[in-house]
Amino acid sequence: MLRGEIPMGDNHRGVTAPKGYTASGVACGIKKNGKKDLALLVSEKPAAVAGMFTKNRVKGHSLKLTMENMKNGSARALLINSGNANACIGSRGDQDAREIAALTASLLCCDPGDVLVGSTGVIGIPMDMTVVREGIRVAAASLSAEGGQDAAQAIMTTDLSMKEAFAQVVLQDKTVTLGGMAKGSGMIHPDMATMIAVITTDAKIPHGLLHLALEEAVHSTFNRITVDGDTSVCDMILVFANGMAENKGLSEEDAEYLKFRDALTGICARLSTAVAKDGEGATKVFRVQIHGAASAEDARKAAMSVACSPLVKTAVHGADANWGRILTAVGYSGAEFDPGQVEIRLGPVLCCQSGAAVPFSEEEALKVLLGPDIEIIVDLHGGKFSDHYLSCDFSEDYVKINGSYRS
Amino acid sequence: MLRGEIPMGDNHRGVTAPKGYTASGVACGIKKNGKKDLALLVSEKPAAVAGMFTKNRVKGHSLKLTMENMKNGSARALLINSGNANACIGSRGDQDAREIAALTASLLCCDPGDVLVGSTGVIGIPMDMTVVREGIRVAAASLSAEGGQDAAQAIMTTDLSMKEAFAQVVLQDKTVTLGGMAKGSGMIHPDMATMIAVITTDAKIPHGLLHLALEEAVHSTFNRITVDGDTSVCDMILVFANGMAENKGLSEEDAEYLKFRDALTGICARLSTAVAKDGEGATKVFRVQIHGAASAEDARKAAMSVACSPLVKTAVHGADANWGRILTAVGYSGAEFDPGQVEIRLGPVLCCQSGAAVPFSEEEALKVLLGPDIEIIVDLHGGKFSDHYLSCDFSEDYVKINGSYRS
Repeated sequence: MLRGEIPMGDNHRGVTAPKGYTASGVACGIKKNGKKDLALLVSEKPAAVAGMFTKNRVKGHSLKLTMENMKNGSARALLINSGNANACIGSRGDQDAREIAALTASLLCCDPGDVLVGSTGVIGIPMDMTVVREGIRVAAASLSAEGGQDAAQAIMTTDLSMKEAFAQVVLQDKTVTLGGMAKGSGMIHPDMATMIAVITTDAKIPHGLLHLALEEAVHSTFNRITVDGDTSVCDMILVFANGMAENKGLSEEDAEYLKFRDALTGICARLSTAVAKDGEGATKVFRVQIHGAASAEDARKAAMSVACSPLVKTAVHGADANWGRILTAVGYSGAEFDPGQVEIRLGPVLCCQSGAAVPFSEEEALKVLLGPDIEIIVDLHGGKFSDHYLSCDFSEDYVKINGSYRS
Repeated sequence: MLRGEIPMGDNHRGVTAPKGYTASGVACGIKKNGKKDLALLVSEKPAAVAGMFTKNRVKGHSLKLTMENMKNGSARALLINSGNANACIGSRGDQDAREIAALTASLLCCDPGDVLVGSTGVIGIPMDMTVVREGIRVAAASLSAEGGQDAAQAIMTTDLSMKEAFAQVVLQDKTVTLGGMAKGSGMIHPDMATMIAVITTDAKIPHGLLHLALEEAVHSTFNRITVDGDTSVCDMILVFANGMAENKGLSEEDAEYLKFRDALTGICARLSTAVAKDGEGATKVFRVQIHGAASAEDARKAAMSVACSPLVKTAVHGADANWGRILTAVGYSGAEFDPGQVEIRLGPVLCCQSGAAVPFSEEEALKVLLGPDIEIIVDLHGGKFSDHYLSCDFSEDYVKINGSYRS
């Protein structure tokens, strides 16, 4: 899907890789451990923007302002803080979000409505605006075309690894670049769980078509990963497209659009896989593939149920070829199927046929479960629909990380 | 709800407490660790029976035979083995279930259709019928009116504690006794997850009315606990009523029926609480109470979402007053509500009002979270419907227990 990829230095492979973007990441003191906690991303020219947001009924104050400021389909800058979610603190939270946008705008000499804001971290504690104000000034003064990595670090919360992605594609005879960054490791679930992803491109594409491409890309990537089934209130994926690659301009769902969408999907796939791999306490990632479902919805339900089952996740952690738990999870998924037709494979190892045990080599199964690419394949033999989910195992460390998050 | 309870020796407080029941529990060798694994319960006279079963589409072979044998509303005996679920092994599993019922019937001189069977343990491995046959003979020879506790021990799998309950109630001028036993600690969820519960009574009540009482009792008890959200394929609750208390006979939903139903609900409440307390790796139980929902379904969804959230369960484990996670879980529950109206209390400690943080004493909150009765109370202020859920915390041990269950 990704073509023409050119190796570059690390600083050129994230959100500042496309033309016309600068970024910075600073430690302003929201995080008590002195790590970076404020990321600023700026496009030289106004960019078309598209976004998808958490479906949680509770929404953070910063996220709500971004939804408002995006309505005209255009933006210049994005400021994200980590360490505090700016959520559920009443009207003060809305005021703080507006002040952050206004201060950023004044430093960048643009309209406050052209600044998007994001926050991630603990809920219900007012922002320390004294440190945030000073941080924004430092971040604005530190903007650079090599700042993508600093920004990617500054949005991390419980993440163990920084997540960036990069792609290039030739569109309308011009080389177009896409760059991305993401944060997220716990509370990950479809519909933008505790996750923020930002993708930049220098492609020229109107915001309506950009939104369509984003929806299509997210469907099979960010909406198909699960870490713990929880979703949160601050989560979004944003795409900026500033047109500085000087392609003629995408305007309809033609072959050029599909090239762009596929490149965007590739970026989303890499970022979402990185998020699943960094699942809180995760030691490995596994993929659940459902075949033969009677409907698309049945395929999705079955895949999600297996991917989310704590008993499957712990069995994967312990490299225990307990296919009964897989069948059980399909059984309670709500999908319609005939239990007597089910086939289950761990990678190439057939464990269950016609809904019943078949002899298999425990050694071969163990090899799959200890290997780098764990795939659980379930064929319901009841139709032609397929779907997949990416998940991670459940280890003792998940509990350790989450038992005292606020402290 | 329970009245006239009389303290008795332990052996008289489970399924053999009511008149006319004998039981036994033996170790026949299905479990490799030498623990009891075969329970037999017999009613001297044919008993009316009612049952509720897993809603998992995949159903174990023993459970399917019990559903069949219960159709006439009457039974004499119940044989349950632990250590092997007799599930998902094809036609051999059905044959084994039938042979178990037939052998038990021949030893008790009754019809095979009057014997119910249950199995719990690992899925997909054929029963070792050689040890089971011998075990049934020993169990039949060991039947005694003091055998309730042995039976309760023999149905345990990953349970750390044996679960029994007992109640007496005066019905139609006769003292009626109810006794119960249950197993279950992982895979617990509404609709009879990895759980088997058996209740006996000497009340005289027709099986249709007995079924109604059971449904009503289960609704607010077994269907309101959650340990890990998984449900399994072998799970059921059965009630036997042999009429030997010689009450005239319940026949309609009158005041006497309500007394019986309440006593049955009390038994179910105690057994289901014991199951939640024994949740795999659980160190404490917490109760989620939702008020002010716009509909009964919204109340149930919100309560279940908070009770099942891994992030809430780990926060409870770490005694972290992270009410943001509670609000977040209500937010993604699917319930309709206005986030700006939500009130959250940890026991008496108000943490969130009108959807926003309020100052609270961390010390007081910690006292609640370290105490014996942890209650999370959420008022949505959007209607008159309430519901509740019982859950347990999520500790490192859950993962340890489930990472290598088969081995």
